[in-house]
Amino acid sequence: MSLVIVGSIALDTIETSTHSVSDVPGGSTTYCSLAASYFAKPHIVGVVGEDYPESVITLLKDHHVNLEGLVTEPGKTFRWGGRYAENFDNRTTLFTDLNVFETFNPALPDSYKKAEYVLLANIHPGLQHHVLDQLESKAFVVLDTMNLWIDIALDELKSLMQRINMLVINDEEALMLTGERNYGKAAAKLRDMGPEWVVIKKGQHGALLFHEDRIFAVPGLVLDEVLDPTGAGDSFVGALIGYLAQSKDLSFDNMKLALVFGSVLASYCVEDFSVEGITYLEEADLEERYDEFVIMNQF
Amino acid sequence: MSLVIVGSIALDTIETSTHSVSDVPGGSTTYCSLAASYFAKPHIVGVVGEDYPESVITLLKDHHVNLEGLVTEPGKTFRWGGRYAENFDNRTTLFTDLNVFETFNPALPDSYKKAEYVLLANIHPGLQHHVLDQLESKAFVVLDTMNLWIDIALDELKSLMQRINMLVINDEEALMLTGERNYGKAAAKLRDMGPEWVVIKKGQHGALLFHEDRIFAVPGLVLDEVLDPTGAGDSFVGALIGYLAQSKDLSFDNMKLALVFGSVLASYCVEDFSVEGITYLEEADLEERYDEFVIMNQF
Repeated sequence: MSLVIVGSIALDTIETSTHSVSDVPGGSTTYCSLAASYFAKPHIVGVVGEDYPESVITLLKDHHVNLEGLVTEPGKTFRWGGRYAENFDNRTTLFTDLNVFETFNPALPDSYKKAEYVLLANIHPGLQHHVLDQLESKAFVVLDTMNLWIDIALDELKSLMQRINMLVINDEEALMLTGERNYGKAAAKLRDMGPEWVVIKKGQHGALLFHEDRIFAVPGLVLDEVLDPTGAGDSFVGALIGYLAQSKDLSFDNMKLALVFGSVLASYCVEDFSVEGITYLEEADLEERYDEFVIMNQF
Repeated sequence: MSLVIVGSIALDTIETSTHSVSDVPGGSTTYCSLAASYFAKPHIVGVVGEDYPESVITLLKDHHVNLEGLVTEPGKTFRWGGRYAENFDNRTTLFTDLNVFETFNPALPDSYKKAEYVLLANIHPGLQHHVLDQLESKAFVVLDTMNLWIDIALDELKSLMQRINMLVINDEEALMLTGERNYGKAAAKLRDMGPEWVVIKKGQHGALLFHEDRIFAVPGLVLDEVLDPTGAGDSFVGALIGYLAQSKDLSFDNMKLALVFGSVLASYCVEDFSVEGITYLEEADLEERYDEFVIMNQF
């Protein structure tokens, strides 16, 4: 038992200026676990409705995602719809139908409770607390969150930050939480709030890792075409913790590699709709894109 | 004779949310030549008025800047004033008094005409054409420009782009010139317009180098304090061409280093007002910051 991922499982409707898809695999757990699966065996906790497609179950099984913690409940699966403006500058939520997710209360199977690596993917901080309460091991805990929880559940989020090892948030969320636009100052304040590792994501400009007095910058890959940015952040953090769970090495140098592989999966994610870009990848695909980062980054 | 830099020389008034300074050294040539001076001996062309402070002449001489092409004319030196919004999100021009710069017509001294490296720092594209017309050598030409010339002198700028080797512009200017938000597509269009090398600057997110099918990304350094961003782009391109003129190596790998040293000087520039941050630096200062880029970039 090594890696546990808890977050949302959804069926998404996504509209861009050129395409639209509906009822496709979505939710933070789905992206995170598929991205992590290239490095480690993710054990997920989640809830779906009776309408959840068998094809997605097959997809997850094909990627060796352990589904012992996946519960099917009467009713419909969580559905989310979003529309992207041209150039993906902005995203509007079209609808959020929680359905069976409304009463989701993540229960870790006994076999999950000794996890060494835990990814608290994006869900309400109260539920994330509840996940940690069930752990019987001293795990390396990575937390992802979003602006909504900073707005409506700040106290729970702040107490949660004292229980985690790494926080992964985007630049706007870092500004919301700290009032600091300067990345270095924002990261220092975030580390003062608990986590010894902080990652600030900057979208197409890549991400920054902060730990002690060290900083690592991974650039964004310059891609020919972005089709759907949904799940890019989840793919990033999923691959990151998957890489850590595989390598079991928490040195700064290894954490750099975890960020690069996070970026590799995020870059594949945005090149296609839903999870299409991060499924059935070969090792050679990962190596090829890793090499692109090497060429682009190393001097 | 190796490196010639032609642009503007000014005395600046700069207001930020916390400080203000007036009649301090400014103008593209001033920043570019000081930044370049750490690597090569820059030969500048420019015009100043009778009021130009002897102290700035001394400063330039201290940095081994060749002033044979510097002309003093009756009247006052070009003055520019700007005010930065809080967090430097925005800059407002307070005044532009061209004075002796209004009739500036750059004349290259004979000793400059066999330059191997020419930096056309930011001035009107018509004047930049005139500089190239006087060259008697096949030089490696780097062009810097700004949104103003894209607006009011686009045809001259476009014909100029066919005469240069490298274009250095920021992301907004790249969008203005190409209509492309995707950096890869924008760079491809810019290269189709002439220069085989394109650098797109992204402010605090660093810069991207494009050449043939290769891309290099240099990240922005995370700085504790930015005091005055004026001249950061000039310092970047000045150090870049200075490094090239010193190393005489136009390989992609060496160009990466030129961008890193450009970023080193730009990072020093913004830490103090006017040119204060990029004067009287020691080799150890450059090495120290270069090492920061290594730690931040290499994995």
